[in-house]
Amino acid sequence: MPNLRLALCQVNPAVGDLTGNARLVRTWTRRAAGSGAQLVLFPEMMLTGYPVEDLVFRRSFVAASKAALEQLARDLAADGLGELPVVVGYLDADGPPQVSADAEPGRGARNAAALLHRGEIVATYFKHHLPNYGVFDEDRYFVPGDMLTVVRLGGVDVALTICEDLWQAGGPFAAARQAGVGLVVNINGSPYELNKDDLRLPVVRRRAAEAGATIAYVNMIGGQDELVFEGDSMIVAADGTLLARAPQFVEHLLVHDVDLPAGPDRTGVTVDAAELAEGLRVVRRAVEGALPAPTGPTSAGPVATGGIIEPVADEAEVWQALVLGLRDYVDKNRFPSVVLGLSGGIDSAVVAAIAVDALGGDRVVGVSLPSQHSSEHSREDAADLAKRTGLDYRIEPIQPMVDTFLANMSLSGVAVENLQARVRGVILMALSNQEGHLVLTTGNKSELAVGYSTLYGDSVGGFNPIKDVWKTLVWRLAKWRNAEAERLGGTPPIPENSIGKPPSAELSPGQLDSDSLPDYDVLDPILIGYIDGDLGREGLVTSGHDPAVVDKVLRMVDTAEYKRRQSAPGTKISMKAFGRDRRLPITNRWREDG
Amino acid sequence: MPNLRLALCQVNPAVGDLTGNARLVRTWTRRAAGSGAQLVLFPEMMLTGYPVEDLVFRRSFVAASKAALEQLARDLAADGLGELPVVVGYLDADGPPQVSADAEPGRGARNAAALLHRGEIVATYFKHHLPNYGVFDEDRYFVPGDMLTVVRLGGVDVALTICEDLWQAGGPFAAARQAGVGLVVNINGSPYELNKDDLRLPVVRRRAAEAGATIAYVNMIGGQDELVFEGDSMIVAADGTLLARAPQFVEHLLVHDVDLPAGPDRTGVTVDAAELAEGLRVVRRAVEGALPAPTGPTSAGPVATGGIIEPVADEAEVWQALVLGLRDYVDKNRFPSVVLGLSGGIDSAVVAAIAVDALGGDRVVGVSLPSQHSSEHSREDAADLAKRTGLDYRIEPIQPMVDTFLANMSLSGVAVENLQARVRGVILMALSNQEGHLVLTTGNKSELAVGYSTLYGDSVGGFNPIKDVWKTLVWRLAKWRNAEAERLGGTPPIPENSIGKPPSAELSPGQLDSDSLPDYDVLDPILIGYIDGDLGREGLVTSGHDPAVVDKVLRMVDTAEYKRRQSAPGTKISMKAFGRDRRLPITNRWREDG
Repeated sequence: MPNLRLALCQVNPAVGDLTGNARLVRTWTRRAAGSGAQLVLFPEMMLTGYPVEDLVFRRSFVAASKAALEQLARDLAADGLGELPVVVGYLDADGPPQVSADAEPGRGARNAAALLHRGEIVATYFKHHLPNYGVFDEDRYFVPGDMLTVVRLGGVDVALTICEDLWQAGGPFAAARQAGVGLVVNINGSPYELNKDDLRLPVVRRRAAEAGATIAYVNMIGGQDELVFEGDSMIVAADGTLLARAPQFVEHLLVHDVDLPAGPDRTGVTVDAAELAEGLRVVRRAVEGALPAPTGPTSAGPVATGGIIEPVADEAEVWQALVLGLRDYVDKNRFPSVVLGLSGGIDSAVVAAIAVDALGGDRVVGVSLPSQHSSEHSREDAADLAKRTGLDYRIEPIQPMVDTFLANMSLSGVAVENLQARVRGVILMALSNQEGHLVLTTGNKSELAVGYSTLYGDSVGGFNPIKDVWKTLVWRLAKWRNAEAERLGGTPPIPENSIGKPPSAELSPGQLDSDSLPDYDVLDPILIGYIDGDLGREGLVTSGHDPAVVDKVLRMVDTAEYKRRQSAPGTKISMKAFGRDRRLPITNRWREDG
Repeated sequence: MPNLRLALCQVNPAVGDLTGNARLVRTWTRRAAGSGAQLVLFPEMMLTGYPVEDLVFRRSFVAASKAALEQLARDLAADGLGELPVVVGYLDADGPPQVSADAEPGRGARNAAALLHRGEIVATYFKHHLPNYGVFDEDRYFVPGDMLTVVRLGGVDVALTICEDLWQAGGPFAAARQAGVGLVVNINGSPYELNKDDLRLPVVRRRAAEAGATIAYVNMIGGQDELVFEGDSMIVAADGTLLARAPQFVEHLLVHDVDLPAGPDRTGVTVDAAELAEGLRVVRRAVEGALPAPTGPTSAGPVATGGIIEPVADEAEVWQALVLGLRDYVDKNRFPSVVLGLSGGIDSAVVAAIAVDALGGDRVVGVSLPSQHSSEHSREDAADLAKRTGLDYRIEPIQPMVDTFLANMSLSGVAVENLQARVRGVILMALSNQEGHLVLTTGNKSELAVGYSTLYGDSVGGFNPIKDVWKTLVWRLAKWRNAEAERLGGTPPIPENSIGKPPSAELSPGQLDSDSLPDYDVLDPILIGYIDGDLGREGLVTSGHDPAVVDKVLRMVDTAEYKRRQSAPGTKISMKAFGRDRRLPITNRWREDG
């Protein structure tokens, strides 16, 4: 039985950076070669980054992607890596993009994979199953492939597949069994959601059983606008055994030796007669010559084993996702630093701690913006946070500006409350313009959902690290991060007082969140059912929630829809963030309570 | 040859307002009956409004739509209108919504049409072609229908189709020919785009030829977030003759008598043997009994003719679209009034004129917000505009607030320029909170595209009537509106001085747009090619644009992408507004100039 040393390159490409991404492929292929790899795998849309959205419609971009792929093949050969087969994702097109009603059927852009060898593109595969739900819009952008690409290499038949192909039964994996392959490669740009790793392994196992073949699953890592890719690359044997698994949220080279069945003798066979599952037709290619011997040094000696990373706690997973999402948004967009307002409360404290973990204290500016309603403990807690995290701390009192507005206009009630938040927004944006920082927004998902925030006030900012984090989870994250610091002998970043005190916007005397909102322990489960679960009023009441509270909360959510449209991007961690996978009409008279 | 009197009800439903929309159907059916109609047609998704986006995933909403349809059938009968067949669009579902990878194939929500008669739902049809480009995302929401519904009524075989079914060849219209129908009904929620009416008639003619049948095309009107539906309902004979055509942007009852072929004798025929185009199967239903005689009074006497409306000039069409889009956003969201800043410049003047046309002067508040850089003519032009339009005019000088910020912070350059715009934003939002107005944003599409605006400054607002209007078109609209006023003997609303003077942001001494931007006559064609046309650098240079200017403009557009994500909704009039049909990654390193 042949043995192949696989190298799964769990790397972090940047959207649009064709040159930089190609360089990543060359660097990691060299590393893989150094580990004696015989087949090197990179993620979905590796060359372009993922998702490229409407860049698909730019002919110049598609042409550049195809040219970059050909150049990459030549460069790998020039690097002396030409004998090593490399699979990379890229953007292809065999016709004009499909942008209108009268598009030519079957022609358009392709979410594609290529196998590179000896300076050439030996094989290509076009993604068959296109996801078009949640954060995915691939039916807008791509035409589905109708071929199963099988490459004979090192005596083994290897099928190429891409991401969603794995999540649906009956497609390329069923076809792979019919074509008799020994290994299915599945390259991914699979975004993180809380506990998605718990779903992923069972699905890979089901497809391994369906294909009757080993599966090499490689996923990217990194942040891209509101998405964060988590890695979690793995190899699963045909019998469902998990052979190797990479960690989440970090770049990783997973090298592992797998025993694979030899492909049957196909001498004299020129055509596959049968149509495969879902009408797929098989295209067979071969990598000529012998693969490099797996003789290079590996950390595990002559037999390479990638090891199996154990899952971590939810809070650890979410924290890492938020840190990576923020870091990549800042760095990939080339912001030098970030600035945020520090109220002394839990939300801004957690955002500051995330920012310092992502960027270091010297790239984070925290500004205390006290008013006449700011309590003494708020100012002290903000200063304490700054000391614990080492961020650049400033104080900008807002009262002179607030007073000038009030002296020149006749304002009362909510207008005065919001004015204070907006003066803070103006100050943060002025610092951003003056010094180049990205402004971070610090509203949690619970308060965004019910509209408990000020448009153009505390909602100001280019990125909100906790926009998809319910308030109760903000507290859990704070406690987890402090405990983690203590476990490792460091300083807990978040003041205990910020965790323990009752939440308040401090925009009017003695104001508390609980004056306007149900307790977050009551509020969050209703919001989760309504927003993440699409439960209606009846479904929520049947789940045991108080009907009067449900009515109040639903009305708040429905009428706050407009504010949410103004919210900054931020890392998505749950089923529905307030972003492109939650799409509701602003103009909408539907009310659950009639 | 049978003759049918058709009534096409070009009405304005509201998304989510099941009760109000059902009431519209009853009211207009009564009007149609009064005109002696024998078949009454309402638009796509009439009962729910269109598009309902993620409301599709709310089981409670789907159930309410189906219940509303059944109630409507009963109510029409109770109104004494039960003998009159009525076609309405609604939301149906024959299984759980398709929201994930493991959805059950073929089950999910349906974009549906029903024929109501004698208190019953006699026939239903599920939309076959689902658009998933531009502003459409129907592959996310709906499962395509695979049946062609044919109803025998008044001796004529009538096929039901919905919107996109008309825009693609080879589907239900080809099947309709195979099924031998005499009339194809096509109900629509077809959004306006500049000159789309010029495309629509040829497409209807092509489908009439394909089906070999008369087509009754009915479209809704009204604003829905960034969409505006234009009407333009029409009847086209099998030979391509335009028989009747309704005006754009207004509710209209189009009643017209058409001669139609009698359906063949189908006695003894119980099953249609053949599979039709695209695998569609035919389902036949019948409206029992005789139709009401077409004896009611019509404006045209015993033979009803709906007349043919001639197309209007582009400027008139755009102006009507912007007025209707704004009016419906304000009224359907129940805002009492709007407020906007008046700079004396052309953009705010045009927005004010649109707002007054939409809402009346008493629902529009215009605020002059002068600074030390505001010229005398700016203040005078703002006051002149107010007098001409009769809006509620106020003056709120910003200098005291600007000075207080400057005294408390160390700001220079762009930070000081933006500060002034943001103080204006705070004042407008304070007026909004205090008095309940919706804030209108006044940035044109050219300046939004290149980022020549202040985030949280002049970009503040809940709706931007000209967000999709290039600057050169803003001028054309102003001239057209003034000329139209003169033609009708009224007061031209826009001061000539606002039209004629060179544009300036007036945020620093002597500042002009031309200090930072190419002339708009040069800029706009490049922007249109790049943004609406997806042309790359080479394509633009090949079109004859100066390469250095192209590079400068493309760089400005690419780096302004983030600002656009913060822009308010506004009516869409061209191929790509900065909204949900222009989807580009924020984090994106692709540059056309390398």
